[in-house]
Amino acid sequence: MRHPGLDAAILTSEPNMLYLSGYSAVSLERLIALLIFREQDKSCLIVPELERERAEENCKLQGVEILSYRDNENPVSILVGLLSKNRVSSLGVEGSTPYRFIYPLHSSQPPITLSLIDDIMYSLRIVKDEREVECLEKAAEINNKLLIDAVNHVKPGLSERDLASFVRARALELGADEVAFVLIQSGSNSALPHQEPTTRKISSGDIVLFDIGIRYMGYYSDITRTVTYDKPLPRQQEIFEIVERSQSEALSKISEGARAQEIDGEARRIITEAGYGRFFIHRTGHGLGLEVHEPPYIREGNLQELRRSMVFTVEPGIYLAGEFGVRLEDNVIVSGNGYRNLTKLPKSLQIKDYA
Amino acid sequence: MRHPGLDAAILTSEPNMLYLSGYSAVSLERLIALLIFREQDKSCLIVPELERERAEENCKLQGVEILSYRDNENPVSILVGLLSKNRVSSLGVEGSTPYRFIYPLHSSQPPITLSLIDDIMYSLRIVKDEREVECLEKAAEINNKLLIDAVNHVKPGLSERDLASFVRARALELGADEVAFVLIQSGSNSALPHQEPTTRKISSGDIVLFDIGIRYMGYYSDITRTVTYDKPLPRQQEIFEIVERSQSEALSKISEGARAQEIDGEARRIITEAGYGRFFIHRTGHGLGLEVHEPPYIREGNLQELRRSMVFTVEPGIYLAGEFGVRLEDNVIVSGNGYRNLTKLPKSLQIKDYA
Repeated sequence: MRHPGLDAAILTSEPNMLYLSGYSAVSLERLIALLIFREQDKSCLIVPELERERAEENCKLQGVEILSYRDNENPVSILVGLLSKNRVSSLGVEGSTPYRFIYPLHSSQPPITLSLIDDIMYSLRIVKDEREVECLEKAAEINNKLLIDAVNHVKPGLSERDLASFVRARALELGADEVAFVLIQSGSNSALPHQEPTTRKISSGDIVLFDIGIRYMGYYSDITRTVTYDKPLPRQQEIFEIVERSQSEALSKISEGARAQEIDGEARRIITEAGYGRFFIHRTGHGLGLEVHEPPYIREGNLQELRRSMVFTVEPGIYLAGEFGVRLEDNVIVSGNGYRNLTKLPKSLQIKDYA
Repeated sequence: MRHPGLDAAILTSEPNMLYLSGYSAVSLERLIALLIFREQDKSCLIVPELERERAEENCKLQGVEILSYRDNENPVSILVGLLSKNRVSSLGVEGSTPYRFIYPLHSSQPPITLSLIDDIMYSLRIVKDEREVECLEKAAEINNKLLIDAVNHVKPGLSERDLASFVRARALELGADEVAFVLIQSGSNSALPHQEPTTRKISSGDIVLFDIGIRYMGYYSDITRTVTYDKPLPRQQEIFEIVERSQSEALSKISEGARAQEIDGEARRIITEAGYGRFFIHRTGHGLGLEVHEPPYIREGNLQELRRSMVFTVEPGIYLAGEFGVRLEDNVIVSGNGYRNLTKLPKSLQIKDYA
């Protein structure tokens, strides 16, 4: 935290607190914050009283001072007092911090200059170390098995929600610590990228799109496959093949030193040349780590150079409103002259190929 | 939004967007915001392109303008442009808004005065209308059945995580739209109020604490029961009886016009008089609605008067570190001269009483 111009930084997000201290908690409306001071590597943890014991057990920072508050105390006063006592005049703040905890600082006397520290934090986290890679590999491995089981569980008459319920339970059996999300979209629902599972029953002939994210030891995987229960219709097959080609060409551009936007550009070029450019309505991918979406973002305009041990998704898609959508999403790690694919799954529209 | 002194308000949280417009989405790192202008009840929805279709289908606001952006565009520029075009010089902001979306407004010219609008939004939401009460009743009803099944599934040798996995799957079968959380804490883990399920196996004689929240049509329930597999030990029974008395006395204080802190005071008085005051380390309850924690907070210092159709939890607990913890949590709705309990479950330490 020896960043020029910052007297202190406040961290409130689960991933950043976990990354720096080994302790984290979902804060809901109660303030849970790690305050790191420039001087003497001093740090304080502000937690509700009912978190004190977990914080003491899990926080790995040397000499951290744990300050806990009761529900009838205002934690923001504790924060303001700490900043004042330590003469903090410039404070780095995470972009995800709820504005309610920052608003009272606007009226501090003497005033405190606030700045965003997301770039600093993400630059620390963007290249994964060995232990992190192991966790991400294991998360992907669990997710691979889960996708196989999910795809093989498809049958006409089953609702998206029934299928999602099966997937959620199976994920935990396979060793996931947490299920981040289970999107199961059948028929025309697959054309709506963020649609939650509905009571719609799968019919023979339907496209079924699975987009599943799980968490293992704090780290995420995020994998998508699209299948049909019966032999695919020619139209379904045509779109699938464009998406598959888009993904494989994009993957082939990955190597140390390539820029994030080149991967996006390649995925987009294939789909655009096939005439479906305007139906590919999102970026090609996002980083994976302690968050399910984090840098590097694989999108137009991102000049970030890829470096060894960055981990991200490559997930082109085509969405035909009222008809169906197709997306394929793999998780990869950048190696010296290419990448290693953590998603060891078939690429096929046909369920039988997942046997 | 005709609030004195505000030219506009920006809403970014799922519950508030849902409450005002019928549309919401979890935003992760992409900005999703509803902007409401004082003039002419004009409103704009800013969404990523991949949300446009869902927004158009679900947003119920008359004359709302939907502005969508692609992943290579900066949504905060759209926001800044809108505020400037509409000559907004005072903006209401939700406390939960991530600071990254607000930070760029600090350098607006002419400057924009920011204020928090949580009190206004919560004052709209704190008393539930008929449709909301129906959703909350149904959520509690599903949760009641779920608790019965969960308690009856306890057996020695089963891990907390196995039990949690059963509960998550069962919740969806019973009609929950979403499982908000499943805390299952056995033995000494029950003394850690926020501890997630571990691989610890339940032993005969253990306390097992279930704290389960589910969501139905956007509305939450949140219920806790504590049981032992075998006949309770005298020490377990003693603590349970204090918590039970604390809860029932607190409940008896609920009526229109009573203040929130009186309910907390009564729950705390019983536990303190029994000698365990310092082991009751959290407030007595919280409101339930579109958020699982919302006003009214049932805590010391909260002078909020209870009004008919407020819905909240009453959940005293005693946590003996290294030994065990006991908590009982019911969901209630304020009626004219008392309350209606939505949690229709036995209060007993003995599993057989849940048959």
